[in-house]
Amino acid sequence: PKAATVDSYLADWAGQDGAKVEVAGVIRALLEASRRLAARIAEGALPGDPGLPAGSNTDGDTQKRIDVASHDLFVELLTEAGVAIILSEEAEAPVIGKAGGRLAVAVDPLDGSSNVGTGAPLGTIFSILPAEGDDPFLVPGRRQIAAGYVSYGHTVDLGFSVGHGVVLATFSPSQQTFLVTGSATSLAGDAKELAFNASVTPHLAPAMRRFVEDCWTGKAGPRGKSYNMRWLGALVGDLHRILKRKGLFFYVGDARPGYAQGRLRHVYECNPIAFLVEQAGGKATDGVTPLLDLVPTGHHARVPLVFGAAAEVEAVADYLQAGTAQAAE
Amino acid sequence: PKAATVDSYLADWAGQDGAKVEVAGVIRALLEASRRLAARIAEGALPGDPGLPAGSNTDGDTQKRIDVASHDLFVELLTEAGVAIILSEEAEAPVIGKAGGRLAVAVDPLDGSSNVGTGAPLGTIFSILPAEGDDPFLVPGRRQIAAGYVSYGHTVDLGFSVGHGVVLATFSPSQQTFLVTGSATSLAGDAKELAFNASVTPHLAPAMRRFVEDCWTGKAGPRGKSYNMRWLGALVGDLHRILKRKGLFFYVGDARPGYAQGRLRHVYECNPIAFLVEQAGGKATDGVTPLLDLVPTGHHARVPLVFGAAAEVEAVADYLQAGTAQAAE
Amino acid sequence: PKAATVDSYLADWAGQDGAKVEVAGVIRALLEASRRLAARIAEGALPGDPGLPAGSNTDGDTQKRIDVASHDLFVELLTEAGVAIILSEEAEAPVIGKAGGRLAVAVDPLDGSSNVGTGAPLGTIFSILPAEGDDPFLVPGRRQIAAGYVSYGHTVDLGFSVGHGVVLATFSPSQQTFLVTGSATSLAGDAKELAFNASVTPHLAPAMRRFVEDCWTGKAGPRGKSYNMRWLGALVGDLHRILKRKGLFFYVGDARPGYAQGRLRHVYECNPIAFLVEQAGGKATDGVTPLLDLVPTGHHARVPLVFGAAAEVEAVADYLQAGTAQAAE
Amino acid sequence: PKAATVDSYLADWAGQDGAKVEVAGVIRALLEASRRLAARIAEGALPGDPGLPAGSNTDGDTQKRIDVASHDLFVELLTEAGVAIILSEEAEAPVIGKAGGRLAVAVDPLDGSSNVGTGAPLGTIFSILPAEGDDPFLVPGRRQIAAGYVSYGHTVDLGFSVGHGVVLATFSPSQQTFLVTGSATSLAGDAKELAFNASVTPHLAPAMRRFVEDCWTGKAGPRGKSYNMRWLGALVGDLHRILKRKGLFFYVGDARPGYAQGRLRHVYECNPIAFLVEQAGGKATDGVTPLLDLVPTGHHARVPLVFGAAAEVEAVADYLQAGTAQAAE
Repeated sequence: PKAATVDSYLADWAGQDGAKVEVAGVIRALLEASRRLAARIAEGALPGDPGLPAGSNTDGDTQKRIDVASHDLFVELLTEAGVAIILSEEAEAPVIGKAGGRLAVAVDPLDGSSNVGTGAPLGTIFSILPAEGDDPFLVPGRRQIAAGYVSYGHTVDLGFSVGHGVVLATFSPSQQTFLVTGSATSLAGDAKELAFNASVTPHLAPAMRRFVEDCWTGKAGPRGKSYNMRWLGALVGDLHRILKRKGLFFYVGDARPGYAQGRLRHVYECNPIAFLVEQAGGKATDGVTPLLDLVPTGHHARVPLVFGAAAEVEAVADYLQAGTAQAAE
Repeated sequence: PKAATVDSYLADWAGQDGAKVEVAGVIRALLEASRRLAARIAEGALPGDPGLPAGSNTDGDTQKRIDVASHDLFVELLTEAGVAIILSEEAEAPVIGKAGGRLAVAVDPLDGSSNVGTGAPLGTIFSILPAEGDDPFLVPGRRQIAAGYVSYGHTVDLGFSVGHGVVLATFSPSQQTFLVTGSATSLAGDAKELAFNASVTPHLAPAMRRFVEDCWTGKAGPRGKSYNMRWLGALVGDLHRILKRKGLFFYVGDARPGYAQGRLRHVYECNPIAFLVEQAGGKATDGVTPLLDLVPTGHHARVPLVFGAAAEVEAVADYLQAGTAQAAE
Repeated sequence: PKAATVDSYLADWAGQDGAKVEVAGVIRALLEASRRLAARIAEGALPGDPGLPAGSNTDGDTQKRIDVASHDLFVELLTEAGVAIILSEEAEAPVIGKAGGRLAVAVDPLDGSSNVGTGAPLGTIFSILPAEGDDPFLVPGRRQIAAGYVSYGHTVDLGFSVGHGVVLATFSPSQQTFLVTGSATSLAGDAKELAFNASVTPHLAPAMRRFVEDCWTGKAGPRGKSYNMRWLGALVGDLHRILKRKGLFFYVGDARPGYAQGRLRHVYECNPIAFLVEQAGGKATDGVTPLLDLVPTGHHARVPLVFGAAAEVEAVADYLQAGTAQAAE
Repeated sequence: PKAATVDSYLADWAGQDGAKVEVAGVIRALLEASRRLAARIAEGALPGDPGLPAGSNTDGDTQKRIDVASHDLFVELLTEAGVAIILSEEAEAPVIGKAGGRLAVAVDPLDGSSNVGTGAPLGTIFSILPAEGDDPFLVPGRRQIAAGYVSYGHTVDLGFSVGHGVVLATFSPSQQTFLVTGSATSLAGDAKELAFNASVTPHLAPAMRRFVEDCWTGKAGPRGKSYNMRWLGALVGDLHRILKRKGLFFYVGDARPGYAQGRLRHVYECNPIAFLVEQAGGKATDGVTPLLDLVPTGHHARVPLVFGAAAEVEAVADYLQAGTAQAAE
């Protein structure tokens, strides 16, 4: 039996509905850009060193040339696909696209670019919103129409949702197209793997620290089962693994200066992740409140993020609320 | 200026020396097998599901079809290249190769195969030894002639050593060959990143646990600097990152049943890693003793492994020896 | 200086013009299908023998499986791109596409499929027409909006026209997109290379035979220059070479049964070729009359074809008319 | 059933025989060079225009940069594989390789380079000889140990022989290796397709001209069957098609200045072709005498060539000898 292509999935979904056809066209443009980016990435540092600096991004970090090239590529193809306005991690202000377009896209074209050359996965992550209101990006993530990511690893993997679950797909070099491989593992229940940066343990809020220690204690402890862990330091890679294998991810605020809100971006990282995770039956919060109900405070604003298997995300919220209650007493 | 190929590096190194020419031929065979494996891996689950079971390997874990295919491929090409005897992670006993061959190869053709489909790097890791004595594999790793790995991630990366430092290279799809990109970051000094599975913290020996806690404490603590961490759960991926960026890796024994010696294999995982790390100026031990001085107790025997920046590996040994002293008092 | 992509050429050309944007979208769909087909073709007979029969096409020739797969691929992507009706060499009747679409496409998805496995180029050739009138395909070729071809050889080459000359491009594997390489050689003057099947010489009309003999006579003869020849037996390959290097092609009717109108198809082979050749400054006729002024007599009807450098096409017409005059005397 | 690789074919053939193992190693080096060349060719004119002049070759024609690059690549890999001396179409004198090597290789690294960009196949053609005597290349072609070609077209095709028939294979991009597809069509009988440049008809010797005309006459004529024709103007392409589909090729001397011996090179074009054709059951002559019995008069000397289906090659000899007899009367 032949595997279905993502193209045919999108065509079936969109049918003759004009608005859906437009969304499908934008997703196709994102995949086309990703496909080209994948080929470029695979060449490594040649030709033209992707590691040389070229300006600096909004974080003040050294920006890499491959970041700039990726930004240009995505803006070009999204504009061609009729997108009205594009917010990219690589540009301070949103970029105006096609006049009259009905869609807005927030995108991190090359997430994890500090991993270039180390072999850890790189990623693209995107969020599709209606191009309406004062600022289409400063609205609750609940308004997203679609979201997705591409993970560039030993395979080029895709996960996306147009609101009917999360479709997983892999790019087939021999067929030169993305083939559907399945849908995301149900995140409705619990999980046994944590993804977080263990080096911050002493800086975590006491409730979070207790949660982690209780996990490590294993079957004999209050969480009643053994936990494993992974930390790729590559957001899209960790997301992809959790959608395939379950798990709990958190990057919350901690006590260090500049880390009060964690390090992840609300509009183009946390929102699409939260959309996908809910579509897979899981939960995503800022620790307590559903992420999709929050309004970003700026285009590049940060927000704490906890996501994954529903029961684990709920447990974190319970620990945090108990901790708060305790602190308030 | 044109990047040098690994082929020309090997040709320059081997010159007219018959023994070196044979080693170069074996490395070329390993790279040819890796190149083909990379193409197969990139197709993902298609065609022919790589995730379906096909027998079971020496660990009793479910063995995947891609593992079997990789084993067959490496054995075939190594035999063609004149290797006398091959020890592979996928076969209980060593496989007899070419009669009269002067070299033995120990290889894990597809390390981290549990990561297939998750996007984390997969790897090949190999060790080249003289085919001499009762059993060419049950000798101290110090006798290795060459060692190396291939990491299959967003790039296909190679690191290897014939005893003159560690050469790093990346496969160029447009040129269809491995191009030298540099040599490994010096591991002679210290580092600021740990790679270990933090979920085992409570099971660690007290001295190791104290070492980790001291690292997390940061600048104010006894280690005097801030540490970060990563844990890909993919040995070759973690090794590659450390050779590029420095760091300290450990997978030591812990108190859990079956984990007394850690989980890593002495002959085809720990030995080649130790060889590479020493060539890069770093150290590799079983916690205290240099790994390369130990004799494996069996073809698939396990041994604890600590490797990376020299000063950090020494610090671990200090903690462990202090801990032992304390326990002995 | 970075080479322009075909995508950006199409975007510049279409601008905000709704009708042009639709045409650009259809061309992109054709290129996407060609890109995937190229990858499939490059695998040769594996996996799944492309040479095994699967039904029979409108000519009664044995149809190959790769033909069927190509047809399905083009129909799928053209329908997704909003094409209203599609005429393919592989299906007796036109296929209905998207309701409300404004464009019709005639396509031979895999021209020259008898060359599969021989190394000679294969091709895709297409014609874009308004989807209007009783039958959008049975109209003079002059009504074409755009036309083009993809030649699958040692490079994957593209030639197309939206009515502003002929753009030539090559698919770059490292950039994964078609890059513009130039425009077609002017065909406004003469040429020195013939492309025809010399084995039919005795069956040709006397005037054509005399034309050929006069060419072979060289400088001393009535044509006053030396001619060379090529015959790939692959229409798209011969077309591509002539657009790059000048020349004269003919496949006219001859005296053999079934060959009165030659063997080429009016709607999806001769019409797009004539459109491209005129855009490159050349001429295309049925021997005498401009091909674009003729109305096809059926979806799969044949018509004689002479095309290439203007002066040579005119010379053929002169010989034929002189021959007719002579015959009439 | 899995297709056999060329690697395993060579390994089976060579077994433990030292001399054969050396030949197999040289063929592998040639295939490795071809694989890399194919990737470079597929990029077309980018990056770095392959069409810019770079010196001039032995013919005084403008030499293309891709020619120079190909020459360098083949010389490098053949030397690494231990070849003692290499004669290449791109260098006036043979290049000294590895001291002590037992094999000589004559090669045209990029045959048909005037076809770059036109889509017609390009090729590599090679001949392996013992490195012995005053000049290993100026000996009868009968002494060849092995010969072969790679055709770069819509597939990358290989044909070679080590003296046990002609093995045909195709490079599989998804498996990244050459897979055996079969053996050459028997050329023991007759054929119905000519490959020659019909534009030279008036310059041909009267006997050859009569042969061609008799073929064109078809069933009613002295040859008793209908003939078709092809002329790619790309030697390797025409060779590959004839090995797959039968046929008769000729490029003989004609009356034009500089064409007395045709245009094909004895050592690195005609000899390997003749070896392959005889291995496929066919014949190859200079018109009359078996090509493999002739001694080349120089490294780049030309010789007339007739090859293909045995009965057709014999028929040409009969026409030529009858013609000579007639002329002698």
